Amino acid sequence: MNQSGKNQYMADTIRLTLDEVFGLSVRVLREHGMSMAHAQAVARVITAGERDECYSHGIYRLLITTHTLRSSGISRDALPVIRDRTPAVVGVDAQFAYSPLSFEMGSKVLIEKARKTGIAAMVINNCYHFSALWPEIEVLTASGLAAIAMNPSHAGVAPAGGTQAVLGTNPIAFGWPRPGKDPYVFDFATSAVARGEIELHSRAGRSIPHGWGIDARGQPTNHADAVLNGGAMLAFGGHKGSALSTMIELLAGPLIGDLTSLDSLKYDDGRGASPCHGEIIIAMDPLILGQGHYAEDDARAERLFDEFLGQGARLPSQRRYAARKRSLSDGVQVSRTLHEEIMGMLSGSEIETQVP
Amino acid sequence: MNQSGKNQYMADTIRLTLDEVFGLSVRVLREHGMSMAHAQAVARVITAGERDECYSHGIYRLLITTHTLRSSGISRDALPVIRDRTPAVVGVDAQFAYSPLSFEMGSKVLIEKARKTGIAAMVINNCYHFSALWPEIEVLTASGLAAIAMNPSHAGVAPAGGTQAVLGTNPIAFGWPRPGKDPYVFDFATSAVARGEIELHSRAGRSIPHGWGIDARGQPTNHADAVLNGGAMLAFGGHKGSALSTMIELLAGPLIGDLTSLDSLKYDDGRGASPCHGEIIIAMDPLILGQGHYAEDDARAERLFDEFLGQGARLPSQRRYAARKRSLSDGVQVSRTLHEEIMGMLSGSEIETQVP
Repeated sequence: MNQSGKNQYMADTIRLTLDEVFGLSVRVLREHGMSMAHAQAVARVITAGERDECYSHGIYRLLITTHTLRSSGISRDALPVIRDRTPAVVGVDAQFAYSPLSFEMGSKVLIEKARKTGIAAMVINNCYHFSALWPEIEVLTASGLAAIAMNPSHAGVAPAGGTQAVLGTNPIAFGWPRPGKDPYVFDFATSAVARGEIELHSRAGRSIPHGWGIDARGQPTNHADAVLNGGAMLAFGGHKGSALSTMIELLAGPLIGDLTSLDSLKYDDGRGASPCHGEIIIAMDPLILGQGHYAEDDARAERLFDEFLGQGARLPSQRRYAARKRSLSDGVQVSRTLHEEIMGMLSGSEIETQVP
Repeated sequence: MNQSGKNQYMADTIRLTLDEVFGLSVRVLREHGMSMAHAQAVARVITAGERDECYSHGIYRLLITTHTLRSSGISRDALPVIRDRTPAVVGVDAQFAYSPLSFEMGSKVLIEKARKTGIAAMVINNCYHFSALWPEIEVLTASGLAAIAMNPSHAGVAPAGGTQAVLGTNPIAFGWPRPGKDPYVFDFATSAVARGEIELHSRAGRSIPHGWGIDARGQPTNHADAVLNGGAMLAFGGHKGSALSTMIELLAGPLIGDLTSLDSLKYDDGRGASPCHGEIIIAMDPLILGQGHYAEDDARAERLFDEFLGQGARLPSQRRYAARKRSLSDGVQVSRTLHEEIMGMLSGSEIETQVP
């Protein structure tokens, strides 16, 4: 959600503690049939999103989640099956449930492996996509590992030089551990912008900048609706971004025996559920991949960040970390409208919405 | 080199077989003191560049190479030291020689490891950068592996929101094996364009498009000279490309105990030699990372490529493969001026330049 979308939502807000956000999320998910293990894993990610003021990944996500729970064949309780496949690969079969529990369980094995072999991969198959990748990346950086995570999504982005949606918005996230400091983490869609951004422009009747999308005939357009109705989004950065998005399709799709964005859209069959697909997470240990001078390597990375900050450039997650600090001390502000909508999904909701 | 630069060079050309390109390259490198093992490894990469009509990585590269040989502390004969570091990591100490021999020797171990563990990394340290990454990627795709290669370079690119050069042009290359077909391979700089492109605009007195670079005060500029003299290039794709470039600095720098682009520029100390640094290559085996249905996964990837081609989008290396086919049957056309310049670097050059 962008700033204007946020302001719209924030006009009338209530304040919640992070515990309340977590508890509310668990309750909604449980009432939609999710097992406690899954509900808590998903709620942890939602709480992290709300805490870091990534509103589209906060409790707003409960609306998308419950839609997926109602409309798709997603499992509410299947336990992930973890398989130790090689000294450097852990496989997790999510058994068609959401991904957070798979990640939580598999990442413990991934961390052990990366610390032994220097590089290791976790392959999650048959999972329903849930939310941003940075919460996963932060688990790995907190263990002193560098990490890359990628997944396809539903096809909505045309390749550079093409005219039709083939690629997903295909996020890639990366993290670098900074002992004693917030890690260096980025997490971005390889589309020029998020689909939600184009939807906001459509609702506001505003034109979109060149490079965001094409219309149904494959022509560049400034009309948000032309992109949304039969057109396609474009990748960031022209043919380079398009190539990167293709890499994500291949590595988090066919490489790991799972679906591409085209496949997952077909699998969805018009239900509008979250993508069901795979995810690859690669973890790397500087203590093993380096040459035995970790303090020096760490200092080298810090000099790079100092150079960025010294010339007024930001590190990618600075805003999230600032929000986190605020939220941990003061709780979060949640749109009253959104809160009421979520409370309305609970049984006995009349009583619950009496928030002072 | 772009098309106009090529045409300029190609006005008067001679034809050489690929064997002649290889032989000439070896001879020039040997006369500059390189051991036979290094000269042949470097010449193989140069011949591949010329063959694929990547002119800036063909015999033109001999000019840069001999400059580096004359001006830097590069080793002409050090044998790479290969170390089997973990089941998933092979380390290669290039001992301050060029990288191709290190790659050739280390990649045999990398391939074995990736086939056993599913994912493996090769870390090359203390190597002088040589040329494009796609020849390396193709060695791995020819062995049925998917692969990513990255390296920093001399600092010349400002981070998004910054004003000064910190990042290198930092290439990333990726390959996907297509049994019986040319692999899917991309290899691009994370700068908006190659520095050579800005130099060509400078020489031609042409203005450069918005987004290629900033001037010495950190302001956007259309003047090529302002970028080249005290300014900085920009990353492709705004803050996303800038973040990706930073990832490359970290993974192919501090992660593997080697230099960032800032460090390598400092190490060069104004000599104008090729960057001395590290490189990371990650190889992944679909037979191990998949779920046991390789034919299906392969078909899934092919459907993706078919979708691209069916709507008029190109696969990233198509032009190179077409050139390769031509060159393998007809040899290559080399600028007479460039050829004479190279022949002039050889002893007894008067006789040698008598090309019919």
